[in-house]
Amino acid sequence: MSGGFKSRHLTVVGLGLMGGSLARALRSRAEVITGVDRDPDTLKYALDHGIIDVGTEDLKAGVSEADTVILAAPVRVIIQMIEGRIGAYLRSNTLLIDIGSTKADICDAMARLPIGVQAIGGHPMTGKESNGIEESDANLYVGRPFVLCPSRRTTPATLARALLLVEAVGAVSIEMDATRHDQAVAAISHLPYLLSAALVATVAQEGNQDDAVWRLAAGGFRDTSRLAASDLKMMGDILSTNTRAVARILALFRRELAMIEAMLISQDDVKLAELLSPAREARLAWMQRVEAAKNGSGK
Amino acid sequence: MSGGFKSRHLTVVGLGLMGGSLARALRSRAEVITGVDRDPDTLKYALDHGIIDVGTEDLKAGVSEADTVILAAPVRVIIQMIEGRIGAYLRSNTLLIDIGSTKADICDAMARLPIGVQAIGGHPMTGKESNGIEESDANLYVGRPFVLCPSRRTTPATLARALLLVEAVGAVSIEMDATRHDQAVAAISHLPYLLSAALVATVAQEGNQDDAVWRLAAGGFRDTSRLAASDLKMMGDILSTNTRAVARILALFRRELAMIEAMLISQDDVKLAELLSPAREARLAWMQRVEAAKNGSGK
Repeated sequence: MSGGFKSRHLTVVGLGLMGGSLARALRSRAEVITGVDRDPDTLKYALDHGIIDVGTEDLKAGVSEADTVILAAPVRVIIQMIEGRIGAYLRSNTLLIDIGSTKADICDAMARLPIGVQAIGGHPMTGKESNGIEESDANLYVGRPFVLCPSRRTTPATLARALLLVEAVGAVSIEMDATRHDQAVAAISHLPYLLSAALVATVAQEGNQDDAVWRLAAGGFRDTSRLAASDLKMMGDILSTNTRAVARILALFRRELAMIEAMLISQDDVKLAELLSPAREARLAWMQRVEAAKNGSGK
Repeated sequence: MSGGFKSRHLTVVGLGLMGGSLARALRSRAEVITGVDRDPDTLKYALDHGIIDVGTEDLKAGVSEADTVILAAPVRVIIQMIEGRIGAYLRSNTLLIDIGSTKADICDAMARLPIGVQAIGGHPMTGKESNGIEESDANLYVGRPFVLCPSRRTTPATLARALLLVEAVGAVSIEMDATRHDQAVAAISHLPYLLSAALVATVAQEGNQDDAVWRLAAGGFRDTSRLAASDLKMMGDILSTNTRAVARILALFRRELAMIEAMLISQDDVKLAELLSPAREARLAWMQRVEAAKNGSGK
């Protein structure tokens, strides 16, 4: 991969935490970086901090000179842009990559772009509790998985350029089909969010009747409830573009919870432990794997 | 509270993380500290590190000279000790306090102790991911809620001494009825554990078929799944002594999750957001409260 990722003109559409961090991480790889955002204050911040060279609220002006365009907006905004006029604005051979959290609908939309647009779906598995350009960080993607999902507009050249981009931000690329991606994130991301939200709703019912509930809540509740505070607009977009996979995983979850509850109510300690033990082992094994990967990437 | 908690002879039964930390936190308040544990290596560690003055595997020898006895074992071990012979071993007026994670069964058992034993239930809301005397820490209880649940063997003098003990370890006492405590912890502690375990069981099913599931799992899954790695013996004891409250809260949870799922499947974004928004607000409000309390106690 001689030289790695290079861009004459990189455009990032959506300068939030994720888009801002990509601009920072690719700063030295691009001759010009244009930022497109609807918020003038965000554009001003990005310009003042040297994150972008040019700022505009106009999508057409922002993307028409670019050789690489990154769409870093909520999923349905990305779909609207792809289904809208962006295909007509882009130069031929432009690499168009998005970083939306679900991929099947986006890759479907990409398939209808003009031939000549090099479009590929992306999803970096990272983030922070707080959002916004002020939180952006050139190292946000380092060592993190970055999924790439081919669309019908993905050529071998598209994939090669996307892989260089992923490498340039320090992430670890994982190629997979969009449907498979959406099923995986339904399990490891959307289900945890829904459980967290339903947990807080349940605890709030109890807490409204007895304030001691809130006063006793400690570390276990803190961790399990964290995702309930996620941005609702973002989560709404994610859930509404992954409904089928989420419904499927919810059904599996209900069965697991029902089995545990049955053993609990029948006071069968041995069977309950047999049921809970594989989950414990699986969690410990996964954490070992995460630690090993961390140590590996730290070398 | 002139002088605060003092003990001529304090005995801690069970030298794990919690018991060891109590012994360390009360080190300067007790003339003699005896540790009772079934593991000779644990006793040796506690003696070598000056956490206790005397170590024994024998409950009778360990408690018969004490004026304060702390039972720091899993819930059902505590119940066995209280229902067993400990009442016969204790001197009159000894303060007997436990730190088991459920309280109704323990306080019921305490009610049948000989009159003269000053027994009260306790539950400090703290812990660490790793257990064992090696992890013990004199500051583990500082600023943490410490529930006190009166039993029929709790006199005003019992409560006064227990309050001094709680104050001495730096914790914040909350007095409440054992049943009310058990309902509260079912919501904020036992339910999160069960959700975490069922989540990991669900994800493991998917992960066994597609390893990418594990590779994509990131921070959201990490936090939500942490409790699944809890000690099974401890959790089994907790769940089996709080089955009714746990079953009740599971029913409430199922209803919350079903409402969310219904809105999701009907693709009603507005209603879904209306449902998820109060959970988000409640989580944010609770975190603000936690931060405020932290800053308050830091003064």
